[in-house]
Amino acid sequence: MNGLRGLRLDEIVARLGGELRGDGAKTLRQVATLARATADDIAFLANPRYREQLAGTRAGAVILGPAVADACPTACIVTDDPYGYYARVAQWLHPAARPAPGIHAAATVASTLPASASVAAGACVGRNVRMGERVSIGPGCVIGDGVEIGNDCLLHANVTIYADCVIGARAIIHSGVVIGADGFGFAREKDAALGPGGGRWLKIPQIGRVLIGDDVEIGANTTIDRGALDDTVIEEGVKLDNQIQVAHNVRIGAHTALAGCVGIAGSARIGRNCTIGGAAMILGHLEIADGVHVSTNTLVTKSITKAGAYTGWVPFQEHAEWAKNFARLRHLDAMSDKMRDFGARLDALEKKS
Amino acid sequence: MNGLRGLRLDEIVARLGGELRGDGAKTLRQVATLARATADDIAFLANPRYREQLAGTRAGAVILGPAVADACPTACIVTDDPYGYYARVAQWLHPAARPAPGIHAAATVASTLPASASVAAGACVGRNVRMGERVSIGPGCVIGDGVEIGNDCLLHANVTIYADCVIGARAIIHSGVVIGADGFGFAREKDAALGPGGGRWLKIPQIGRVLIGDDVEIGANTTIDRGALDDTVIEEGVKLDNQIQVAHNVRIGAHTALAGCVGIAGSARIGRNCTIGGAAMILGHLEIADGVHVSTNTLVTKSITKAGAYTGWVPFQEHAEWAKNFARLRHLDAMSDKMRDFGARLDALEKKS
Amino acid sequence: MNGLRGLRLDEIVARLGGELRGDGAKTLRQVATLARATADDIAFLANPRYREQLAGTRAGAVILGPAVADACPTACIVTDDPYGYYARVAQWLHPAARPAPGIHAAATVASTLPASASVAAGACVGRNVRMGERVSIGPGCVIGDGVEIGNDCLLHANVTIYADCVIGARAIIHSGVVIGADGFGFAREKDAALGPGGGRWLKIPQIGRVLIGDDVEIGANTTIDRGALDDTVIEEGVKLDNQIQVAHNVRIGAHTALAGCVGIAGSARIGRNCTIGGAAMILGHLEIADGVHVSTNTLVTKSITKAGAYTGWVPFQEHAEWAKNFARLRHLDAMSDKMRDFGARLDALEKKS
Repeated sequence: MNGLRGLRLDEIVARLGGELRGDGAKTLRQVATLARATADDIAFLANPRYREQLAGTRAGAVILGPAVADACPTACIVTDDPYGYYARVAQWLHPAARPAPGIHAAATVASTLPASASVAAGACVGRNVRMGERVSIGPGCVIGDGVEIGNDCLLHANVTIYADCVIGARAIIHSGVVIGADGFGFAREKDAALGPGGGRWLKIPQIGRVLIGDDVEIGANTTIDRGALDDTVIEEGVKLDNQIQVAHNVRIGAHTALAGCVGIAGSARIGRNCTIGGAAMILGHLEIADGVHVSTNTLVTKSITKAGAYTGWVPFQEHAEWAKNFARLRHLDAMSDKMRDFGARLDALEKKS
Repeated sequence: MNGLRGLRLDEIVARLGGELRGDGAKTLRQVATLARATADDIAFLANPRYREQLAGTRAGAVILGPAVADACPTACIVTDDPYGYYARVAQWLHPAARPAPGIHAAATVASTLPASASVAAGACVGRNVRMGERVSIGPGCVIGDGVEIGNDCLLHANVTIYADCVIGARAIIHSGVVIGADGFGFAREKDAALGPGGGRWLKIPQIGRVLIGDDVEIGANTTIDRGALDDTVIEEGVKLDNQIQVAHNVRIGAHTALAGCVGIAGSARIGRNCTIGGAAMILGHLEIADGVHVSTNTLVTKSITKAGAYTGWVPFQEHAEWAKNFARLRHLDAMSDKMRDFGARLDALEKKS
Repeated sequence: MNGLRGLRLDEIVARLGGELRGDGAKTLRQVATLARATADDIAFLANPRYREQLAGTRAGAVILGPAVADACPTACIVTDDPYGYYARVAQWLHPAARPAPGIHAAATVASTLPASASVAAGACVGRNVRMGERVSIGPGCVIGDGVEIGNDCLLHANVTIYADCVIGARAIIHSGVVIGADGFGFAREKDAALGPGGGRWLKIPQIGRVLIGDDVEIGANTTIDRGALDDTVIEEGVKLDNQIQVAHNVRIGAHTALAGCVGIAGSARIGRNCTIGGAAMILGHLEIADGVHVSTNTLVTKSITKAGAYTGWVPFQEHAEWAKNFARLRHLDAMSDKMRDFGARLDALEKKS
């Protein structure tokens, strides 16, 4: 996956801006970390933690901020946003590999696709699928009947999309993702014959779809269920990490990012420009405002109406310390009652004295 | 996935009961929410939260309870269980789509299957597989040698079932599900050469199976491991949401439902008619009684012997508030000791005064 | 999956050691639990919990420790490590089934493979794949270009390995595993047009690989992302359970075991000989020393520099009890302040009296 063509420093600055210091004719072939870069590589310094690695770097060039530019031992590009600049250089040097157009002989395709489409071996494309230009369908993918896929989408191997779902342009969908499976909807029909409180679960047909906007990326083994009646909606620019569960009728606002292992229960609505930390869980039928940041491992149990950061995890400790402290949690209410009693007794004593 | 045939209101009541108010000759074509339904749709009102939408609905008919029937602006069916009634109407109007019988030329089948079976492109069915009538195997599914699948099962795309597992009748299994992978069983063989406390893990062969009862539904990307020696058992009527992990030798009692992202460790036994909230975790080798309801995000660390609701999650707060409060958790034991001291000092002061 | 050949007791002891009591000519055909074993089976007693089942067992032989050997009603093998001994006997009686060598006609293979390789129907093997001897690739697996797979690896059905990843010898990889998907790396480019705090996520190309050492086992639906610049590394002998998420640039030390549903954020480094309990979460850019044991459901938020056990979960309770106690958590800081005040008032009163 190395960059093959190489870029001249002055070519980079001509397109992406920033201030060039040093020899603009230098050619860089790939991006690398400050610690490992060699003369053909371009590195970056965005996180102050790595500041001390600057002096010793053997990189051909470094992307960095104005405050540290004078300390750079080699050519550099000075910019106010070194990390974003690095992202653009890396995209340029390392464009995503795209398979050649064409339908593999070992694929099964029941729709008419554009000549620019690429469908790999073992993939199955159903009937009435509408596909934009330059879409890549990886090996083993299954695309249900009536699915719509926008231009330039890249589906890696073994992705499953159920019937009638809609994927916007430029989506990147990783292996093992399942889009459009039935939501978890059942009515409980009590039946005393099944024991006290017993009942059977009647399946509610899930007839909504999943609608995914443009520029969405979805990580490996993430699942997004179809709506029960209305649709599940992922707006444009949303980024989902691996192993996320999105239940039926959820709506995720534009440019929101969710880290790995997050779970979102049915009909929750998450705003725009939010970040949801890893393994956070969001209960159903609630709303989260725009610009909310939920910490890792936090359980959101009610709506959040104001932008800001919200947290609810417990600190860990060495096991014996933890055992002592957390056993008390079961008696916190009693502790609180006792404190009220102490307060009253103190008041009485102080009045007397 | 729209309902095609349509149903007359009096036809519905004749089969499912309830009291009809309004024109029984009206034909309804699909189910919809109160807010979005139009004249061809039948809506329902089960959750009091949506009560206010009733007056403005444009639905052709509404399924609702007796207390709100007089306020309905259109035809309605009055029943004591509007949600269950709605489930039955929805199942009738929107029967699950079933592929036509037949084995696709691009499937690989090494067993003799009933003529009513449907096996899609890219699916692989091993040797000595016993399949009931009208089973659908989706594209890319892999069915191991010796597997048994009951009548009318529906396996969506890319499901994997390891050798010798048994699936009851009418199962619905969603994409990415893995049934019968090896349980996580290892013996630790200490080896000082690997550092202090070092050792190698010796694999314990996992020779049990997974046995799944009738009428079970399993959500996308859920995993159920085979037993180590005895079998892992999922009893009839159990419903599993997405991304659930069921370890070896677990037993889940009939008609129990588990929400997404739940994890159940080895040899745990869960009763009948339980509900387990999303992301709850259940430790191994413990028992949960019938009729237990475990809240979302709760870690069950010991057996629960009595029906009821059990909970163990922490409330979230605005981050700065949380940081102040939760730092104290690490000192709860010290706080408790201090309170005992305060109590003694108060006693002494009160005796003196 | 029953053991077919059977082993004589004296044959077992000749190879694996231990003290034989009883008839060495007895032949055992499979392993079983004390409770279910019959005359052809060999059982074991390692967990004192099952001590009482010994007297009534109908097993042909039992593997057990010296302290209980006299109480055994049948032939036995006495050893200091009955569980490890049992593991070895079970491996011998129940060797993993391996498909016959050969490339199935319905597989798609674009590399030259050793004659000892087995590639099942529906599998796709890319270009420039280097494969050791006796590798088994299950149905529906997708092996990207340039992947390297060591001797005797067993990939169950529907595994996906992205381009350029490296798998050591004797790996066992279960269905639904995804190795080498892109890490979750984005730079945020602020854009006021997208609302307050709004911005777009620029993808950072993920050009590192995943390197997996020898003797690693990976459970169903686990995901391991490729590195951003450097590689993600899983050292030899590591065991990963199901549904685990390993982010980019993580390093997991040799012989460490992770239980199901664990999540590890980017660039975390976990030591050797660690155990990580189910659903534990480990934040990014931190280090965990060798020999650390993290409890189930624990969130590790900072580096752990010393071997030992670490914990951070909350106890569950009957719901009403929990509600009373955990509501107090939100006021723990206020409680702590009030206690400081009480202390001062007590001091003052005691001085006076």
